Amino acid sequence: MTNFAATKALFDLPAGMIYLDGNSLGPLPHATAARVAHTVTEEWGKLLITGWNKAGWMDKPMRVGDRIARLIGAEAGHVVMGDTLSIKVYQALASCLEMTPTRRVILSDTGNFPSDLYMAEGLCRTLGDGYSLKTVAPEDVLDAIDDTIAVTMITEVDYRTGRRHDMADITARAHAHGALTIWDLAHSAGAFEVELAKAGADFAVGCTYKYLNSGPGGPAFIYVSPRHASRAVPALSGWQGHDAPFAFDLSYRPATGAERLRVGTPPILQLAALEASLDIWDTVDMAELRTASLRLTDRYIKGVEAACPSLTLATPREHALRGSQVSFRHPEGYAIMQAMIARGVIGDFRAPDIIRCGFTPLFIDETDVDRAVEIIADIMQNSLWDRAEYKTRAKVT
Amino acid sequence: MTNFAATKALFDLPAGMIYLDGNSLGPLPHATAARVAHTVTEEWGKLLITGWNKAGWMDKPMRVGDRIARLIGAEAGHVVMGDTLSIKVYQALASCLEMTPTRRVILSDTGNFPSDLYMAEGLCRTLGDGYSLKTVAPEDVLDAIDDTIAVTMITEVDYRTGRRHDMADITARAHAHGALTIWDLAHSAGAFEVELAKAGADFAVGCTYKYLNSGPGGPAFIYVSPRHASRAVPALSGWQGHDAPFAFDLSYRPATGAERLRVGTPPILQLAALEASLDIWDTVDMAELRTASLRLTDRYIKGVEAACPSLTLATPREHALRGSQVSFRHPEGYAIMQAMIARGVIGDFRAPDIIRCGFTPLFIDETDVDRAVEIIADIMQNSLWDRAEYKTRAKVT
Repeated sequence: MTNFAATKALFDLPAGMIYLDGNSLGPLPHATAARVAHTVTEEWGKLLITGWNKAGWMDKPMRVGDRIARLIGAEAGHVVMGDTLSIKVYQALASCLEMTPTRRVILSDTGNFPSDLYMAEGLCRTLGDGYSLKTVAPEDVLDAIDDTIAVTMITEVDYRTGRRHDMADITARAHAHGALTIWDLAHSAGAFEVELAKAGADFAVGCTYKYLNSGPGGPAFIYVSPRHASRAVPALSGWQGHDAPFAFDLSYRPATGAERLRVGTPPILQLAALEASLDIWDTVDMAELRTASLRLTDRYIKGVEAACPSLTLATPREHALRGSQVSFRHPEGYAIMQAMIARGVIGDFRAPDIIRCGFTPLFIDETDVDRAVEIIADIMQNSLWDRAEYKTRAKVT
Repeated sequence: MTNFAATKALFDLPAGMIYLDGNSLGPLPHATAARVAHTVTEEWGKLLITGWNKAGWMDKPMRVGDRIARLIGAEAGHVVMGDTLSIKVYQALASCLEMTPTRRVILSDTGNFPSDLYMAEGLCRTLGDGYSLKTVAPEDVLDAIDDTIAVTMITEVDYRTGRRHDMADITARAHAHGALTIWDLAHSAGAFEVELAKAGADFAVGCTYKYLNSGPGGPAFIYVSPRHASRAVPALSGWQGHDAPFAFDLSYRPATGAERLRVGTPPILQLAALEASLDIWDTVDMAELRTASLRLTDRYIKGVEAACPSLTLATPREHALRGSQVSFRHPEGYAIMQAMIARGVIGDFRAPDIIRCGFTPLFIDETDVDRAVEIIADIMQNSLWDRAEYKTRAKVT
């Protein structure tokens, strides 16, 4: 039984702050500083070049990937760490397009995180030859899958609205039409149970600095199904994905399996920070996390709707249709978020009108939710239109 | 006047070790642990999401790039940090091929670091359409540049032999034939004065974990000439290179200038480690560094040649033709390097027969060189053929 009161005590949360922005940058676990310091001083400082073997640096992209695999329902040995989410999107897309040579269309939706769309645009431009990115409204994705689609590139949970796609349905329909699927788990990994293998997903990508609390610029991950792991030839064919990197062959020969998705030298300090956070995640039962998360988000929705009639829920109410964030809309959303931040309730504003808050039972509890609701209600009732005050505050990204 | 005795005191070097492998992974500066700890605890821990503005994280790829720019003779505002060297090679190549649309050949040499060749192979495969990578022997590069070449992709200093290409000559000939140039500075940046702007280089890429001492997996850099900075459209078009990343537009619009070469979220912990090292580099005059480096490498060559007649110099003797590493060949090179490591002289073996040592005046002095020569001479005279001993030692990468 996961003890969420105990996990909360493992995070370094500034006093008086209710941090509802762990879906943007997760907070610092207490153990991270010492872990990173150990890697810097004892590993890099003392082992120097031999750290690649003696401290296991060379194996970290796969070993750490295995710890992520459990959280996202992936087969062991099929999640690899490295690079950034955007790079991993490109890598997955290029592999999928190569495996569907008679098709030219990437399908995504207008709720996808823009960087995914930009990377797809860039790849299509590089490929030329009629390749294109097609975007439809999030609710139209399922119907838009037909025999022209090479691959779907979908972020499971919409970064603004919090709406969640049905991974199993979309994957099944894609496969029925001969298409492949790439799932961006940026707002899924660590937010709820993900079942990549069960859904039959082909590729998945994600970042670790949100719900997985690896810190600013933490490494991304990529998943490849065992069906494709030794078949997908990487476009980003770096030496760390070579079958024998230290043979220094002049020609590329991909490693067996998912390891071929490595590219360059792994970021060992960022990986150390991630490992400290994964020590907490190793103790978490994902089904219990989901139950606790829904309790928090239900409570927040109920509280805000009762106290703030002018805020409109943007996130689907139905459990199956959302992740672990709740967004409300208001024309003055930017000013409201600035007022919340000034009162210690940290969330994000997303244009044009979204007040976005993320909830994770690892460090947010019902007392936090109730206090956040009180503060938001107070802002809405008393100080919203005092605009001069907000304009002097710095914009928070 | 750079005080190299003073810089040596700024590094954490294990007692009794002569570390001639800073060209593979630089040693730890004393100040790095505290700098990284500050970023973890005071910035990430206390500022959380607001660190992107308040701690200047968002601007670091360009600000840190400016500090690298001075070391490589680049114009300010034209060096950007991020990703790995392999990714930056791909990015530069894709941009260059797009700017030379009538040509199909990437020219490189067989002494290039394999990952550069692999990335070029992967890009050619993705592009199809007759694109190819041509490799010639290092000494034949200049003559191989003709009107069919789209871009040269050359690592300035050969990672095995230490042979240095003439950047100005190759760049001039490439331009005379309408080709572009990409210079990989992995073994140049921090090794000697590089003059990118003066040579008229088009693109350059490099890593920071070698001579620049940023630690394992430190970020790469990319340079784009001001001539191309607002013209090169990135294939890896991530949101951090968008003109307005937080507008979350659905279409990519590259940022003005070199900033468009950013891709995803920058690795803030690795950048903090790099910044601590750059505090040392800020005090170094590059011409003085080169003088001191040549004094060390000349002394090492002279000492080894005098004491070890069976070792054959693989690095050119002429100053202009080499960087800051010296390689000797011996059929038993692997065993000799293992014996050196066992005696505290750390270098690299590179197949088939290269004993490679890197020299940087920041933390290596003449006493170290003399002691290394003594140890190598002793190994060659006394224990080389005692092979059973070496076989029990672990292979060092």
